[in-house]
Amino acid sequence: MKKVVTFGEIMLKLSAKGYQRLLQAEEMNVEYAGAEANVAVSLANFGMPVAYVSRLPENDFGHAACMSLRSFGVNTDSIAWGGNRLGIYFAEKGASQRPSKVVYDRAHSAISEATATDFDWESIFKDAQWFHFTGITPALSPNVAEICLQACQQAKKMGLSVSCDLNYRSKLWTKEEAQKTMSRLAEYVDVCIANESDIADVFGIVAKDSDVEKGQLRQASYEIVAEQLLQKFNFQKVAITLRESISANDNNWSAMLFDGTKAFNSRKYAVHIVDRIGSGDAFAAGLIYGLINGYDSQKTVDFAAAASCLKHSIEGDFNLVSKAEVESLMNNNFTGRIQR
Amino acid sequence: MKKVVTFGEIMLKLSAKGYQRLLQAEEMNVEYAGAEANVAVSLANFGMPVAYVSRLPENDFGHAACMSLRSFGVNTDSIAWGGNRLGIYFAEKGASQRPSKVVYDRAHSAISEATATDFDWESIFKDAQWFHFTGITPALSPNVAEICLQACQQAKKMGLSVSCDLNYRSKLWTKEEAQKTMSRLAEYVDVCIANESDIADVFGIVAKDSDVEKGQLRQASYEIVAEQLLQKFNFQKVAITLRESISANDNNWSAMLFDGTKAFNSRKYAVHIVDRIGSGDAFAAGLIYGLINGYDSQKTVDFAAAASCLKHSIEGDFNLVSKAEVESLMNNNFTGRIQR
Amino acid sequence: MKKVVTFGEIMLKLSAKGYQRLLQAEEMNVEYAGAEANVAVSLANFGMPVAYVSRLPENDFGHAACMSLRSFGVNTDSIAWGGNRLGIYFAEKGASQRPSKVVYDRAHSAISEATATDFDWESIFKDAQWFHFTGITPALSPNVAEICLQACQQAKKMGLSVSCDLNYRSKLWTKEEAQKTMSRLAEYVDVCIANESDIADVFGIVAKDSDVEKGQLRQASYEIVAEQLLQKFNFQKVAITLRESISANDNNWSAMLFDGTKAFNSRKYAVHIVDRIGSGDAFAAGLIYGLINGYDSQKTVDFAAAASCLKHSIEGDFNLVSKAEVESLMNNNFTGRIQR
Amino acid sequence: MKKVVTFGEIMLKLSAKGYQRLLQAEEMNVEYAGAEANVAVSLANFGMPVAYVSRLPENDFGHAACMSLRSFGVNTDSIAWGGNRLGIYFAEKGASQRPSKVVYDRAHSAISEATATDFDWESIFKDAQWFHFTGITPALSPNVAEICLQACQQAKKMGLSVSCDLNYRSKLWTKEEAQKTMSRLAEYVDVCIANESDIADVFGIVAKDSDVEKGQLRQASYEIVAEQLLQKFNFQKVAITLRESISANDNNWSAMLFDGTKAFNSRKYAVHIVDRIGSGDAFAAGLIYGLINGYDSQKTVDFAAAASCLKHSIEGDFNLVSKAEVESLMNNNFTGRIQR
Amino acid sequence: MKKVVTFGEIMLKLSAKGYQRLLQAEEMNVEYAGAEANVAVSLANFGMPVAYVSRLPENDFGHAACMSLRSFGVNTDSIAWGGNRLGIYFAEKGASQRPSKVVYDRAHSAISEATATDFDWESIFKDAQWFHFTGITPALSPNVAEICLQACQQAKKMGLSVSCDLNYRSKLWTKEEAQKTMSRLAEYVDVCIANESDIADVFGIVAKDSDVEKGQLRQASYEIVAEQLLQKFNFQKVAITLRESISANDNNWSAMLFDGTKAFNSRKYAVHIVDRIGSGDAFAAGLIYGLINGYDSQKTVDFAAAASCLKHSIEGDFNLVSKAEVESLMNNNFTGRIQR
Amino acid sequence: MKKVVTFGEIMLKLSAKGYQRLLQAEEMNVEYAGAEANVAVSLANFGMPVAYVSRLPENDFGHAACMSLRSFGVNTDSIAWGGNRLGIYFAEKGASQRPSKVVYDRAHSAISEATATDFDWESIFKDAQWFHFTGITPALSPNVAEICLQACQQAKKMGLSVSCDLNYRSKLWTKEEAQKTMSRLAEYVDVCIANESDIADVFGIVAKDSDVEKGQLRQASYEIVAEQLLQKFNFQKVAITLRESISANDNNWSAMLFDGTKAFNSRKYAVHIVDRIGSGDAFAAGLIYGLINGYDSQKTVDFAAAASCLKHSIEGDFNLVSKAEVESLMNNNFTGRIQR
Repeated sequence: MKKVVTFGEIMLKLSAKGYQRLLQAEEMNVEYAGAEANVAVSLANFGMPVAYVSRLPENDFGHAACMSLRSFGVNTDSIAWGGNRLGIYFAEKGASQRPSKVVYDRAHSAISEATATDFDWESIFKDAQWFHFTGITPALSPNVAEICLQACQQAKKMGLSVSCDLNYRSKLWTKEEAQKTMSRLAEYVDVCIANESDIADVFGIVAKDSDVEKGQLRQASYEIVAEQLLQKFNFQKVAITLRESISANDNNWSAMLFDGTKAFNSRKYAVHIVDRIGSGDAFAAGLIYGLINGYDSQKTVDFAAAASCLKHSIEGDFNLVSKAEVESLMNNNFTGRIQR
Repeated sequence: MKKVVTFGEIMLKLSAKGYQRLLQAEEMNVEYAGAEANVAVSLANFGMPVAYVSRLPENDFGHAACMSLRSFGVNTDSIAWGGNRLGIYFAEKGASQRPSKVVYDRAHSAISEATATDFDWESIFKDAQWFHFTGITPALSPNVAEICLQACQQAKKMGLSVSCDLNYRSKLWTKEEAQKTMSRLAEYVDVCIANESDIADVFGIVAKDSDVEKGQLRQASYEIVAEQLLQKFNFQKVAITLRESISANDNNWSAMLFDGTKAFNSRKYAVHIVDRIGSGDAFAAGLIYGLINGYDSQKTVDFAAAASCLKHSIEGDFNLVSKAEVESLMNNNFTGRIQR
Repeated sequence: MKKVVTFGEIMLKLSAKGYQRLLQAEEMNVEYAGAEANVAVSLANFGMPVAYVSRLPENDFGHAACMSLRSFGVNTDSIAWGGNRLGIYFAEKGASQRPSKVVYDRAHSAISEATATDFDWESIFKDAQWFHFTGITPALSPNVAEICLQACQQAKKMGLSVSCDLNYRSKLWTKEEAQKTMSRLAEYVDVCIANESDIADVFGIVAKDSDVEKGQLRQASYEIVAEQLLQKFNFQKVAITLRESISANDNNWSAMLFDGTKAFNSRKYAVHIVDRIGSGDAFAAGLIYGLINGYDSQKTVDFAAAASCLKHSIEGDFNLVSKAEVESLMNNNFTGRIQR
Repeated sequence: MKKVVTFGEIMLKLSAKGYQRLLQAEEMNVEYAGAEANVAVSLANFGMPVAYVSRLPENDFGHAACMSLRSFGVNTDSIAWGGNRLGIYFAEKGASQRPSKVVYDRAHSAISEATATDFDWESIFKDAQWFHFTGITPALSPNVAEICLQACQQAKKMGLSVSCDLNYRSKLWTKEEAQKTMSRLAEYVDVCIANESDIADVFGIVAKDSDVEKGQLRQASYEIVAEQLLQKFNFQKVAITLRESISANDNNWSAMLFDGTKAFNSRKYAVHIVDRIGSGDAFAAGLIYGLINGYDSQKTVDFAAAASCLKHSIEGDFNLVSKAEVESLMNNNFTGRIQR
Repeated sequence: MKKVVTFGEIMLKLSAKGYQRLLQAEEMNVEYAGAEANVAVSLANFGMPVAYVSRLPENDFGHAACMSLRSFGVNTDSIAWGGNRLGIYFAEKGASQRPSKVVYDRAHSAISEATATDFDWESIFKDAQWFHFTGITPALSPNVAEICLQACQQAKKMGLSVSCDLNYRSKLWTKEEAQKTMSRLAEYVDVCIANESDIADVFGIVAKDSDVEKGQLRQASYEIVAEQLLQKFNFQKVAITLRESISANDNNWSAMLFDGTKAFNSRKYAVHIVDRIGSGDAFAAGLIYGLINGYDSQKTVDFAAAASCLKHSIEGDFNLVSKAEVESLMNNNFTGRIQR
Repeated sequence: MKKVVTFGEIMLKLSAKGYQRLLQAEEMNVEYAGAEANVAVSLANFGMPVAYVSRLPENDFGHAACMSLRSFGVNTDSIAWGGNRLGIYFAEKGASQRPSKVVYDRAHSAISEATATDFDWESIFKDAQWFHFTGITPALSPNVAEICLQACQQAKKMGLSVSCDLNYRSKLWTKEEAQKTMSRLAEYVDVCIANESDIADVFGIVAKDSDVEKGQLRQASYEIVAEQLLQKFNFQKVAITLRESISANDNNWSAMLFDGTKAFNSRKYAVHIVDRIGSGDAFAAGLIYGLINGYDSQKTVDFAAAASCLKHSIEGDFNLVSKAEVESLMNNNFTGRIQR
């Protein structure tokens, strides 16, 4: 099977233990994670050949990030080496009424200072069928936005499908900057993935009568949003994840896939959260997996929703679940009895 | 007071930390546990004299397993020493829609290779009033099944009560093997303990209109099951635990004791799970404690249900609660206010 | 701004990890905490100048307790040094139907053996506007009760407001002793803070038709209690926290402030508990902060309730939240979405 | 074989991790230890029947201390239950030029407040052949000194051998108090065990030309000391451990046994220290073991020195080594090659 | 560059923390290691293409072992999947006079039950230049010995160099069995690697006047041994590591390479041990690296000795050092100043 | 007593556990440290009033760094708040022949982007008698070098003594840049502190016949260096620390103070290293403490050397020792016996 290629920033993730605040951390957990890396690992866990592309510094943290990906079987041969530092993000886990908190220290990272010559997309896309990136990648710096554009153009030229998860990050750029750049990239995108607030932030398309913070989301309203989005940018498909946040511990989670004609809704899961970071990426990976493997729209959104539902129960950003585990949840076994 | 004797396999239990998966474990917690050992420790914590019988290898892990039991005051004098290895089981804790998972590595354990000469049941049952084993013990190997039968016969000969928790384990034997062996042992058993699926797996008696996975359990249906079971094997009493699994974190838990004439139901507890492994054993211990101490049927099932309810809040397989703590819960103090 | 002074006992707190019982603890977390110290730290985190007064032994634990306070900017210049030991308290965290448990080992602590000459209240109260203590302080020993009285008298003489959190501890004194001593101190108190059981324990005033253990609390009933209390002791204000304990993990939490004329009720929060010890102190700190800063009664009780709601999500006794975080919760953002 | 009985105080030991200072400890290791308990455990590990006698409070820490002993097979049936607290000691591990540090918080412990009626020595010494205590026990309080005297008298009456390790603790009593009490107890002692400074502190007998702090110890000088001591108190044997402290990490360790006629010296071990607390107790246990089992004087001191040498390599106060491991070291295998 | 292929057993390694004994372990570190896997990882860290061949069970531990190798860039494509369990080994770290201890639980492992059809050596050795195994591999079971023979034959047929580290394990087979099997395999081996005791154990060739346990090793004597060995089995080269064990913490470490004509000795390093397991494998990897890259004999043994010297300072069995770090040590920088 | 002011960069320090490499770190210890902060804390621990000046970002890490200093009683009132990030440094501990390693990620830190208006030196130096900085501070950026110059000028104007520890960091600037800037600052410095390599790196003054890497240092040679340095820059005193690095675990450590006329040498300590980072800063603090308190030159260098000797035994960069502990070591108690 031809491979999937993802492109973005992998960071050193340092997180406080348990429910400790960063302020009181005497020790922190060390991981390596990033939106596109998370997608790559998730796909590898489903058995897909996948390559991850980024730029890493030649130091212990660049090497460890690479080792982390490689352990899952993700191909890292096209990573460019150079630059001064690996971006860092710090995380503390919220509970009850206290939200989780992420502190970024990613400026001046190796990837943010990459140049066009670091990547030979024609070679990278050899034997590839799919290219995935998120809205974080072009937000890293204007030069990375440009590289992203080149990748998209080359991908289309070589007949790859292109997916993009909007993933708006207000710390990296303004809504205006996002809209301008993302609109340009959108023309190469086949499958657009977003959560309920990204679409408003990046493309200014707002669902009616929906109050995200209050946890009331309405399917009908989002079908309209998806359709508007699809028509505006000529996407083939639009997928939207819908989160109702009851507290930092308890969320409802579901998703919708609009295939150009019709919206397909997944079951809504009541999730008791272990770690929700990376659940959007787990959804994207499930979606790509379903689409590549020819699942119908309903099965695709069901697979993607079940995969990302499970991610909420996993420590760390990577979705450490197998295809069989996702299918078991899809097929109605969701009561959490012991597997002996 | 005369002692209780339990017989089975104690294993090295290695568990991933917190909600980590085994795949990502960089360190694991070390414990020693097993169904009959759990019952023994629980009874010792209630103040009962109790002896544990097994076969342990002469290495660090055999010794540590023995030390663990001895620390609770469990008598370990009749343990047979020999064999090559202590059985191991690995555990990861589930959360939300992801179930807990147990990986066994127990083949070729010291106890599974025990022979009849390892145990002198006449001597072991001196000063004893009760013998308890579970369906795991005879499943370990044909020779252990035979030893189990000898123990049962000697127990009845010396006037002990015999209890058995069905505890069907599909990794150890087939339903057919279980049915054949357990039916033979059943004739020596006075008190049969089971959960809602064991009875179907081991004896093929199925509750009507009950869908375990969906969490809908019906008392009336299980009363009929208990009665059928009691009549078929001439048990004096049958106790059934009823679990409704809402998620890996939240279960409803209750129990029923059928005393030959009538069914007595405990309160149903909504438990928020810390660690549910060992809760069935905690129930068995509570039941045996109540029966030995002459509690009436209602009080017996209430004590056993409260004891096993508390087990869900305890890390590890052993039920580290005192009789006073169980009674406090029975007597309506179940809101979890701080005990200063 | 003039400072707040708090007076009491800070202890070495040793707690079992996660949900382990003290009996199974192989290692314990080390903290330093105490009711009045918790209030001081909370106020410092809101930006208030605050001094903490106690007596500490000249050993590693006395020094570490002082360092802990000083790290938050709490002034420790008036701490008296001497005595033989720092009081200790051991804590295990409850779960589900198993309550949290606190074991005190605080007899013979340095502060409990303090004498009047250890503290020069005239000097301590220079540049101060508020004096806060709890019912634990006078309960430590008769001499500390006497010192507390002297502090109250000096505080009133110098025009400070005085607040007292009743905080009845049955391990330290009887209800009769508490009532006698607290009634005498009450005459110097402006603001009385209590939970639903303290008022009954210390002053014998009982709410009608309320069953604390069952979690049914009724506002109307507590308004009457607050009014009775206010009139009996001539308090200016009475604040009562109302906890409905569903389980050791889940509580409902709200509060009421009676300002002499009218009762103001906060929102009721459904809290999923990380650590509830110190939540009453967090409430007291929020209340004092609001009153000093001229918040109206509704805003004051809202601020105090939100602050103490957040405390339930924080590990340790200190309320590690900023004023901005409390305000964010007050202003309706309570769904726990990630703050990136 | 008849059992050994030891009598003393077991404490909650809380130690900083690794080489951390107590001041910086964020978590501490939890153990239960005490000089006589250490001897009991060591003997149990060599296969001797042994009982431990003390008084423990009825709380989690009293129970855990008892469980700790019981896990090694030490008989705890004669422990008296009562009192308010378990004594505590805090430890930090020294390194290089920084010495290890112990902070005691043992005043008012359950055993220190024991009374004569707590112990029925006639019953305790049934089936016993040896009674061991250390100079710490009578130092706990005058009543415990009196109980210790009664135990010694009963032991002699019933024909037991009595051994005493001087173990002078300046925090518990003055040299004068020690000398007065220990001289009275000495008349019942058969075997006196001491380190190089105890004899001077307790009995005022000083070795010539020896400078302990400088690490220069001289055998000849200590032979004279041992002989003087033996004659003064009519001991049958005197054993002295000799430590040369090069740094907190490196010590030389040897021992001498004077059997009334002649001094027998062990090999001198250059030990690289993991944890030296309890090494004197490990020596005492080895000595008692050798004497009970009829080893000749040279073999006895060799066994005891090898046992205590190994203790320096073990974390915790208990000497977790088997008889076979001690013998392996005695028999010249001391280069630490891997045992596969 | 053509790759190196190694073949053997990788196990789950569970080790006690710090200097704890296995008996007292409350938690254990989790790693995956084995002699040939260690060599593979070490070579990968030097930048060599390397493939690892074994048979792994399809469970979490088989997958994790594979992930561990893959993270270092070791090719795992030829691993056969099947069997029931991953072998386990438990380790405790010795100190001072207490030796390190390894407890094996490797019987019935997936690789030990492999059959010839599991491996297609012709395909495996495509693009390979070197095959390495150790004496552990054929000791696993007769069928694995047979597979090993087939691999050797195919390797020679395809022109690969073959190296073998004798690595005698007395728990797996007798000296007689080892001698018989290893002698047969030896005829295909070009480079024989051994430590000072292996040669005696496996081939009965003993160095004169050398007392391993006493730490006195003599170069001259080992040159004769190497020469005898080389002539007997027609090896091209023989390399011997020489360890002088002063204590479990301090060893002297050096090596000799006999190239058929002359012996080349490395510097002797005084190592202060962090973890010595895997140091022999680190030596083998260094040796293979030097030989493949055309280093002269002196440089080869210097590189190998420096690499394995550094291994002693690394936690875990894998030698986590780069080629540059080995060269830095070779080039006289061995005083351990901070690298800023 | 008038205070000491120190000025520099405090960083987030993330270190691998035990002897793990950064590459294998699954969790890291969190501290806050920096050369001048280390000096400030050390002085505070000796009882000196001390203020620390820097610029910190308004985030969790800026606040935590401030809290860390404040806990020791260091005055943080003159810290400027602003900027984007706290500098980070990563550390792994070396062992045996493997050196410790520090990876800096400090570019773009808040302090490196400070401007002159951030600090009002006239106000900062009120009630101060001493100003201390190190060569790291001016190396951070040209603007910080300029601020440092202004501080020196203001310090001299207000009659403060000025000390500077050369602390050359090759990652921050070239030798040429260092020489240029440091020479200009030197004219305001009274006391120059350096290690054996700094003087050569910064001022090009080289000791004859000394080979640092080989661990051979010669006092006589360094006396000449000190004298040259003193005369060239008109320093009042020059202090040099001399380290002989035997391995990453074992160093010899001594120091010399040249007071303009004569050189005073400390004892040479053989240190077994726990953590050597910060030992130079501990020396500087000891030196400043001795000079301020009027110790004679011999006592000053003895106090400083003993203080820094002890630092090697302390985990973390801060020297957590009291004045009494330093004096105890100075006064010949250096064998590391337990302090009970």
